Amino acid sequence: MQLKLSRIAEVTEGNLEGDGSAVIHDVSEIQNAEEGEITFLGNPKYEHYVQETNAEAIIVGPDFSGDYKNLIRVENVSLAFSKMLDHFRPSPPQPEPQIHPQATVSENAILGINIYIGPNVVVEDEAVIENGAVVKANSYIGYKARVGANSLIHPRVTLYNNCAVGENVIIHSGTVIGSDGYGFTRTQEGIEKIPQKGGVVIENNVEIGANCTIDRGTISNTRVGKGTKLDNLIQLGHNVEVGQYCFIVAQTGIAGSTKVDNGVTIAGQVGIAGHVKIGKNAQIAAKSGITKDVPPNTTMFWYPAREHSKARKDIVNIRRISKLKERIKKLEQEIETMKG
Amino acid sequence: MQLKLSRIAEVTEGNLEGDGSAVIHDVSEIQNAEEGEITFLGNPKYEHYVQETNAEAIIVGPDFSGDYKNLIRVENVSLAFSKMLDHFRPSPPQPEPQIHPQATVSENAILGINIYIGPNVVVEDEAVIENGAVVKANSYIGYKARVGANSLIHPRVTLYNNCAVGENVIIHSGTVIGSDGYGFTRTQEGIEKIPQKGGVVIENNVEIGANCTIDRGTISNTRVGKGTKLDNLIQLGHNVEVGQYCFIVAQTGIAGSTKVDNGVTIAGQVGIAGHVKIGKNAQIAAKSGITKDVPPNTTMFWYPAREHSKARKDIVNIRRISKLKERIKKLEQEIETMKG
Amino acid sequence: MQLKLSRIAEVTEGNLEGDGSAVIHDVSEIQNAEEGEITFLGNPKYEHYVQETNAEAIIVGPDFSGDYKNLIRVENVSLAFSKMLDHFRPSPPQPEPQIHPQATVSENAILGINIYIGPNVVVEDEAVIENGAVVKANSYIGYKARVGANSLIHPRVTLYNNCAVGENVIIHSGTVIGSDGYGFTRTQEGIEKIPQKGGVVIENNVEIGANCTIDRGTISNTRVGKGTKLDNLIQLGHNVEVGQYCFIVAQTGIAGSTKVDNGVTIAGQVGIAGHVKIGKNAQIAAKSGITKDVPPNTTMFWYPAREHSKARKDIVNIRRISKLKERIKKLEQEIETMKG
Repeated sequence: MQLKLSRIAEVTEGNLEGDGSAVIHDVSEIQNAEEGEITFLGNPKYEHYVQETNAEAIIVGPDFSGDYKNLIRVENVSLAFSKMLDHFRPSPPQPEPQIHPQATVSENAILGINIYIGPNVVVEDEAVIENGAVVKANSYIGYKARVGANSLIHPRVTLYNNCAVGENVIIHSGTVIGSDGYGFTRTQEGIEKIPQKGGVVIENNVEIGANCTIDRGTISNTRVGKGTKLDNLIQLGHNVEVGQYCFIVAQTGIAGSTKVDNGVTIAGQVGIAGHVKIGKNAQIAAKSGITKDVPPNTTMFWYPAREHSKARKDIVNIRRISKLKERIKKLEQEIETMKG
Repeated sequence: MQLKLSRIAEVTEGNLEGDGSAVIHDVSEIQNAEEGEITFLGNPKYEHYVQETNAEAIIVGPDFSGDYKNLIRVENVSLAFSKMLDHFRPSPPQPEPQIHPQATVSENAILGINIYIGPNVVVEDEAVIENGAVVKANSYIGYKARVGANSLIHPRVTLYNNCAVGENVIIHSGTVIGSDGYGFTRTQEGIEKIPQKGGVVIENNVEIGANCTIDRGTISNTRVGKGTKLDNLIQLGHNVEVGQYCFIVAQTGIAGSTKVDNGVTIAGQVGIAGHVKIGKNAQIAAKSGITKDVPPNTTMFWYPAREHSKARKDIVNIRRISKLKERIKKLEQEIETMKG
Repeated sequence: MQLKLSRIAEVTEGNLEGDGSAVIHDVSEIQNAEEGEITFLGNPKYEHYVQETNAEAIIVGPDFSGDYKNLIRVENVSLAFSKMLDHFRPSPPQPEPQIHPQATVSENAILGINIYIGPNVVVEDEAVIENGAVVKANSYIGYKARVGANSLIHPRVTLYNNCAVGENVIIHSGTVIGSDGYGFTRTQEGIEKIPQKGGVVIENNVEIGANCTIDRGTISNTRVGKGTKLDNLIQLGHNVEVGQYCFIVAQTGIAGSTKVDNGVTIAGQVGIAGHVKIGKNAQIAAKSGITKDVPPNTTMFWYPAREHSKARKDIVNIRRISKLKERIKKLEQEIETMKG
C-alpha cells in the first residue's frame, strides 16, 4: 500500500520537487495532513495552509509559486489526487454477480451476463439488464426499461417503463427516472391530464446524483447527453434535452422542453424556464433564474438573469442608491439656495 | 390504429379545414412531424414551424390565422392532442389485480376488491386499500393509512400512519406523505421535538409528482384539495392547506400553516412563508418568495414578491441606475459651473 | 385520558389563572378549539383568535396580556403544548423488536438487542445496528454502516457504506446518506470522476427530514453535529460540517466543504456556496444566497446576501427609484430654466 514519492510522481505523470525516497502511506486534506501523508492544493483559497500543514508532500498545479519540502507538480491536480485516493483508500467490496433470491425478476426480462440484481429489486416484463450491470437493493426497473452495460444503479432507484439508461452510467439512490411530465390543461370540469407517452434516454457515462427527478417526454424522449454529470435533487421536466459533458449542480430545475447545449455548466439552485435554449459552453451562476435563450459561451447571473458583468453592476448600483439619494437632496438644496 | 382526418375531427370535436380522407398513423411534435403524422400548435413560440413541418395535419386553436394543408381547429388544443396521444401511443400494460406473494400485508389491513399490491409493498395494520387501487412495488402504506378507490401509487412511495389518500389520485415514485412536521423548540438543554400528531389528507383526483414531501399536521391535518396537481420535489410543511384545482410546479416549498385558496397557480422554485394566505386564483411567478398574504386574482413576482407589474418596474429601474448616476453627475457639474 | 386543569398546570409547570376543576379531554388549534379542549397561543399573529375561540383553556407565554376564562401561563408555550399533545393524542403502535423474516440481513452484520428490522430492509456485511434501534421497511443499510442505539430509521432510507448514524437520531423516509460527493474534473477526454472515499457522520440526537441528500466526504467525513434538526429536501455537499443544535429548514442547499458553526439557523430555500464559514448563532433568512463567510451572531438576507438591515434598505431603495427619477427630472428642468 505504501508508495515512495518517486513512484507517485510517475503514476501521476508529475514532476517531483523534493525527496523521491519519502514514503507515503495515506492521503489527507491539506489542513489535516500529517507526516507520511500526501495532500493537494486544488483551491487557491487554501494556499495559506501550505505554511501550516504537516503533509509529507503536496500535489500542486503549474501555477503554484510557493515553497514546500516535497512537491509534485502536475497539469491537473484533481486528476492526480484522484489516483492517490484510488490507491490509498479501499473501495467497498463490489457485489458478486448474482440474481439475489429476494429479487423479483420477470421471466420475460432480458438479462445479460455478469450482472448483479440485489434483494427486493423488481425487474418488470421485457426490461433489459445488460452485461456487467449492477442494480442494487430495492430498486425498480419498469416494463421495457433498459440498464446499459456496466452501469451502476444504487439502492432505491426507480426507472419507469420504456426508459433507457446507457452504458457506464451511475445513478444514485432515490432518483426517479420517467415519472409523468407535468402536463395538464384546464377544462370546464376542472383539470385534465395530458398523457405522457414519451420516455427518458440517459446516454453513456452519465452520472446522476441522489433523489433527482427526470420526467418522461410527452411524445418523444427527455434526454441527458453523454458524459453529463448531475448532482442531487435536480428536476428535469418533460422533453428537456441536456447535451454532452455538462455539469448541473444540486437543486437546479429545468422546465419542460428546454434545450441545453454541450459543455454547459449550471450551478446550484438555478431555475430555467421552459422552451428556452442554453447555448454551448454557457455558464449559469448559482441561484440564477433564466427566462430567455442564453447565447453560447455566456455567463449568466441573478434573477431575472443577465450577462454576469451586467448583473454584478446592477447589484453594486443597488447598494449605491442611498448615496445617490443624498446627492439628489444636496442638488435640490443648492437649487433652492440659488433660486432663493 | 390508423384514423382518417375526418374521424379525428369528430373525436376531437374540431372543425376540419382540409382533406378529411388523409390518413394519420402517429403523433409527433411540430418540429419533427412527418407525412402521415398529426401534430399540434400549442405554444405561439412554435408557430414558425408551421412553414417547416411535414406533418399531415395540425391541430390549432381558435386564434390561429396561418395556412396549412390540413388543419383541425378546436377550442382546447391540449385536450384534443391528449386524445390523439391516447389513441396512437399504447400505454404500458396495467398490472392484473393481485396481492403479490412478495408483498407484506398485515392480516389486519382492510382490502377492497380488484386491487393490485406489488412486490415488496408493506401494508401495516388497519391500513385500507380500497377497490381498484394499485400500489406498486416497494411502497410503504403505514398503520391506519388509506389508499382510496382507483388510486395509483407508483413504486417506492411512503404513506405514513393515519394519512389518507382519496379516490382517483396518482402519486409518483419517491414521494413521502406524512413525515413529521418541522416542529421544535429551543430549551435550556438544547432542542426539544414537538410531537406531530395530525395527519395528511389528499383529496380526490389529486396528482402528486416524484420525490415530493408532504408533512403531517401537528394537531389537525395537512390537506391538498380536490383536483390539485403537484409537480416534482415539492415541499408542503405541516398544517398547510392547499385548495382545489391548484397548480404547483416543481421545487416549490410552502411553509407551515399557510393556506392556499382554490384555483391558485404557483410556478417553479417558489417559496411561501408560513402562516400566510394566498387568495383564490392568485398566480405566483417562478422563483418568487412570498412573505405576506396575497389577495385573490393577483399575480406576484420576485423576492420579496410584489404585484407583478411593480416587480417588473423595479427590475427595469435597477437596470437604469447607471444612467441616473450620469444624470446626477451632469447636474452636479452644471451646478458647479453655475456657482462658478 | 381526561385531565383537570389544575393537574395540567402541574404537568406543564405553569401558573393557572382560572378554574382548576375544569376538565380537558383533547387539544386543538386556537381557531378550531371547542369546549373541553385546551389550546395554545404560540404566535402573536393568532392573538385575535382569543376573542373567538371556544377553548376551555389557553396555554400562553409570560408576555400575554389579554384576558380569558382559563389561562395556563408558562415559560415555553411550545414545550407545554408538546406535553398535552403527547398526553391526549396517541402515538401509533411501536413495532415489537424483531428481525422481520422478509428482511435481508448479512450474517456478518453486528446486531444489538431489542432492535427492529422491518420487511425488505437490507443490512449489508459488517453493518452495525445498535441496541434499541428501529430500521423500518424497505430501508438499506450499507457495508460497515452504523445505526446508533435507539435511533429510528423510517421506511425507505438509504445509508451508504461506511456512514455512521449516532444515538437517538430520527431519519425520515426517502433520505439518502452517503451518496458520492459531486467531484469531477474536466480532462482532454471529457470529464473524470474524483473518487469519494470519506463517509458521513450523523451525531447523536439529530433529526433529518424526508428526501434529504447528504453526500459522503471526499477524504474525511461530511458531518452533522449533535442535536441539529434538518427539515425536508435538504442538500449537504461533500465535506460539509454542520455544528451542534442548528436548524436547517426545507430545500436549503449547502455546497461542498462549507462549515456551519453551532447554533446557526438557516431558513428555507437558502443556498450557501462551497468553502465558506457560517459563524456561531448566525441566522440566514429564507431564500438567501450566501457567497462569503458570515460572522457570528449575524443575520443575513437576500441574494447575494448582506447583513439583514442593509439588504432591507436595498429593497426599500429599489422601490424608490421611480421617485428619484422624478426628482432628477425636475432638477434638470429647473437647471434648464435657470440656464434659460
